[in-house]
Amino acid sequence: MEHVVAGDIPPAPPPLVDVPAARRRTAAEEARTLVAENGLCALATLADDRTPWASLATYGPMACGSAALYVSTLAEHGRNLERDARGSLVVAEDPRGADPLDSARVTLAGTFVRPDGAWAEEARQAHLAAHPGAVAYGGFGDFSFWVLRVERVRWVGGYGRMGSVDAASYRTAEPDPTAPAAAQAVAHLNDDHADALLAMAHGLAGHPDAVAARCARIDRYGLDLRVDTPRGTATARVGFAAPVGRADGLRAATVELARRSRRAVAT
Amino acid sequence: MEHVVAGDIPPAPPPLVDVPAARRRTAAEEARTLVAENGLCALATLADDRTPWASLATYGPMACGSAALYVSTLAEHGRNLERDARGSLVVAEDPRGADPLDSARVTLAGTFVRPDGAWAEEARQAHLAAHPGAVAYGGFGDFSFWVLRVERVRWVGGYGRMGSVDAASYRTAEPDPTAPAAAQAVAHLNDDHADALLAMAHGLAGHPDAVAARCARIDRYGLDLRVDTPRGTATARVGFAAPVGRADGLRAATVELARRSRRAVAT
Repeated sequence: MEHVVAGDIPPAPPPLVDVPAARRRTAAEEARTLVAENGLCALATLADDRTPWASLATYGPMACGSAALYVSTLAEHGRNLERDARGSLVVAEDPRGADPLDSARVTLAGTFVRPDGAWAEEARQAHLAAHPGAVAYGGFGDFSFWVLRVERVRWVGGYGRMGSVDAASYRTAEPDPTAPAAAQAVAHLNDDHADALLAMAHGLAGHPDAVAARCARIDRYGLDLRVDTPRGTATARVGFAAPVGRADGLRAATVELARRSRRAVAT
Repeated sequence: MEHVVAGDIPPAPPPLVDVPAARRRTAAEEARTLVAENGLCALATLADDRTPWASLATYGPMACGSAALYVSTLAEHGRNLERDARGSLVVAEDPRGADPLDSARVTLAGTFVRPDGAWAEEARQAHLAAHPGAVAYGGFGDFSFWVLRVERVRWVGGYGRMGSVDAASYRTAEPDPTAPAAAQAVAHLNDDHADALLAMAHGLAGHPDAVAARCARIDRYGLDLRVDTPRGTATARVGFAAPVGRADGLRAATVELARRSRRAVAT
């Protein structure tokens, strides 16, 4: 994975106590999760004058990590795919703040193919599960399913977090099963459990002088914190005891983490 | 302009009274407005293996309708542009409802160029006005401004509303000056002036049997209404007496429209 720092990031205060590195999702897991949790992408296809053509499309995430499109030849991108099936799509998370470049996005590139047989049925089900209204286009003869054969994956998580992923690693990585519950868990922690977050900053994140802590993100492996200290604001990672396997497992894992933090503070 | 109806749209009840067609923004005006009101796009560029490459980029809207990008050669799209400057970008409004394909988006296609002289300064100012934080990248030698020479424009407003626009019409069209105030005006009308909207449905939209009306959109030329009648839900357009020239002019124009509606009902 490459790390390139862009922009004007003020130096963050380092931890005052050595803390073990907490596990993070790999770039492949980040990419799989982003694609699994979304259903809208921008497509790049090749127009008839060979200009790369950007357009909007819906997709259904597939179990293999690919995207099932359902597009019309009345749309320019549909005609483009008929002519030249090389292309890519980018999926972006909702911008978290004022700076959209500090949010995550992933590009999947390769060749779009019209699936047949069981694969076609899988694509159809994947698309309709994400976009039930699309069943209404079934009567229009100009709509076809297309699935991207993913050859190359480029994930950008925000400033300084990015990575290229080979197709095999992407295919075999697992989307984070806790992602559907993450936004609500973050809001709940920040609204109701500021004390537990502060205990994590004190006991496990190496900032015993922290005065406040907020949860920026949560995933199956742990939490990203923003920690206010008299030395400035730090970002810190605290890890769960074990990866969480289900969306409804975040609560128990966070409670365990808070208990462990308080024990660490007490000793 | 082409009109293609996709999806399963139930037949709407027609007006019971003949009403004159109310002016709408042209496809060129729609496209200009969408680009002027946004700052985030998906780019399509050509990767080194000739695959169209979809990525996310920020831009600053320019007075000519083009987009000023500020991209790094550390990013794949930056290297792609250095190699082959043909490309396009798509700008999308925030999805209004559950179906993102019923929202507006526009593709601008052509050749990206590195501006020089006064044009470079204009691009710099346009980008920084939209993204003040980007000034921080100025110290990085890998960042360059790029401006799209727009050759082709494709606007899609949602189901059944779309059009291609030639480059000259796009360049000379005016972005809607009321767009920055539109979302707030719609919310205000629906929250506090249901009676005025119903009067518009009765008096000007040709639905004297309407039982309720909501404002779906507002622009410099008038309002789009969703009108509930015993015959079903209709969409209707009511026009202002004259185009509104400033964002703060929507209120007076709407008050005039409500008065005119009530007079029409009374006669």
